[in-house]
Amino acid sequence: MILLDGKQAAEAMKKDIAREVARWSREWGRKPHLAAILVGDDPASQTYVRNKENDCIQVGMDSSVYRLSESISREGLTECVRTINEDPAIDGLIVQLPLPGHLDEQQIIETIDPAKDVDGFHPVNVGRMVLGLPAFVSATPAGIVDLLQYYHIPTSGKECVIIGRSNIVGKPLANLLSRKGPGGDCTVTLCHSRTLELEKVCRRADIVVAALGQPRFLKANMVKEGAVVIDVGISRVEDKSTKSGFRLAGDVDFEEVAPRCSYITPVPGGVGPMTRLSLLKNTLQAAMKRN
Amino acid sequence: MILLDGKQAAEAMKKDIAREVARWSREWGRKPHLAAILVGDDPASQTYVRNKENDCIQVGMDSSVYRLSESISREGLTECVRTINEDPAIDGLIVQLPLPGHLDEQQIIETIDPAKDVDGFHPVNVGRMVLGLPAFVSATPAGIVDLLQYYHIPTSGKECVIIGRSNIVGKPLANLLSRKGPGGDCTVTLCHSRTLELEKVCRRADIVVAALGQPRFLKANMVKEGAVVIDVGISRVEDKSTKSGFRLAGDVDFEEVAPRCSYITPVPGGVGPMTRLSLLKNTLQAAMKRN
Repeated sequence: MILLDGKQAAEAMKKDIAREVARWSREWGRKPHLAAILVGDDPASQTYVRNKENDCIQVGMDSSVYRLSESISREGLTECVRTINEDPAIDGLIVQLPLPGHLDEQQIIETIDPAKDVDGFHPVNVGRMVLGLPAFVSATPAGIVDLLQYYHIPTSGKECVIIGRSNIVGKPLANLLSRKGPGGDCTVTLCHSRTLELEKVCRRADIVVAALGQPRFLKANMVKEGAVVIDVGISRVEDKSTKSGFRLAGDVDFEEVAPRCSYITPVPGGVGPMTRLSLLKNTLQAAMKRN
Repeated sequence: MILLDGKQAAEAMKKDIAREVARWSREWGRKPHLAAILVGDDPASQTYVRNKENDCIQVGMDSSVYRLSESISREGLTECVRTINEDPAIDGLIVQLPLPGHLDEQQIIETIDPAKDVDGFHPVNVGRMVLGLPAFVSATPAGIVDLLQYYHIPTSGKECVIIGRSNIVGKPLANLLSRKGPGGDCTVTLCHSRTLELEKVCRRADIVVAALGQPRFLKANMVKEGAVVIDVGISRVEDKSTKSGFRLAGDVDFEEVAPRCSYITPVPGGVGPMTRLSLLKNTLQAAMKRN
């Protein structure tokens, strides 16, 4: 069993990005620039945004964070998005989710200029990705494909089962892995809460992706001997043996499943770092497209 | 074995549409209006456009056809699209495909106002459909879902195998059938030219959709006893016993497969009429959204 070390892969790929960023910055006299809008003061969102800022610094990009009050109106937030859309010095824009309940996330996402939508959440980017056209692909699905490619794991003709049909992971990943070309060409089955005999369906898979958000859901009896297992989940579970009283757990029962796998991602340190990397790749790509 | 009679289903549903169209027209003092752009004089395209015009008349809608020369430039065609986009009297616009080789189809499609894109080919509509948002769904996938619903064939929890990953059928249909809600909730596997052991994969399916464009491709050994079989293909095959010297054949070997099925679509008269119906539904929907 080989561990798919997303941290190491992301670090290696960051070096390539940093080189590209340096070259681009020399050529154009400025750095690629990622802006993030952070509404309210949710601690987890603050951490995510800080991590993204640090990633930018690490590869030589500029970043800025627009901190808006929890009580901002739709119009106020839209105005902020519009200002960034029109700012020629900013290449990529993300609105950190979740937003407070009074704001319609989809409506806000659709106000982002698709050419700056480096999260790949705008319908135009989702549609272009599905149609096989150049597009910003959302970070987690793109990171998973990159991780498979980094480890030279073949996908063409492989049976892939994805558990979970979320808009940010399951659905785009199903489309991405079944596309024609390198990193695609899988025979993909998308499973969800209505799927019957899930164990049986999962056991067919050469590649299983668990992305449903239920800690330790995927058990050994759901995995074929020698399968590749990708764990997208990350939840806090109680653990009295730790100082904090909890620990992070993925959607895969790692202890049980790992011995059966050819490759498996750890949690943390698997898909997470690759997701963060994708955002950097998309931002660089956005900058390169604008010049 | 029950024949899924798309012609009869479409006629029945047309009556509902005609009633809605009449009500809408009374209320707003004009009829919903579908415009088609036809470039060149390909005989098949001319037939398709004529059929669409006749369908419109049958349900009480207006239709108009913009006939442009085979040699029209991209700018000329774009200008025509823009004029129709801005015409308040026109609700829906389709550009009949294929276009002559010197015109980039995707580029032209993206100039259509998404609110008038009743073919559902614009990336915005594809993306919104994938994300589960209100959208124009492309005609063939929408027609297939309608046909299943018309015959009260359950989809929730059913295993569905789709053969063919085209942008206009396989990919959108996979997304549509795996969506949450009525007519969806299938466990969908999307197969294509790189799929291994296709017979085995198809034999798992409660619902098989053949959409690869190879006459009589689907054989009895690829279908589980009692499955529902949807045939999207329509090709001309040589047949010396007919006056014309050819006949229409689907992607399913009907004689061989039909006895194993619970339900099967004929070709012609199965998916085809439902596809035409979808265009009317989308045009009515476009008109209703604008008022």
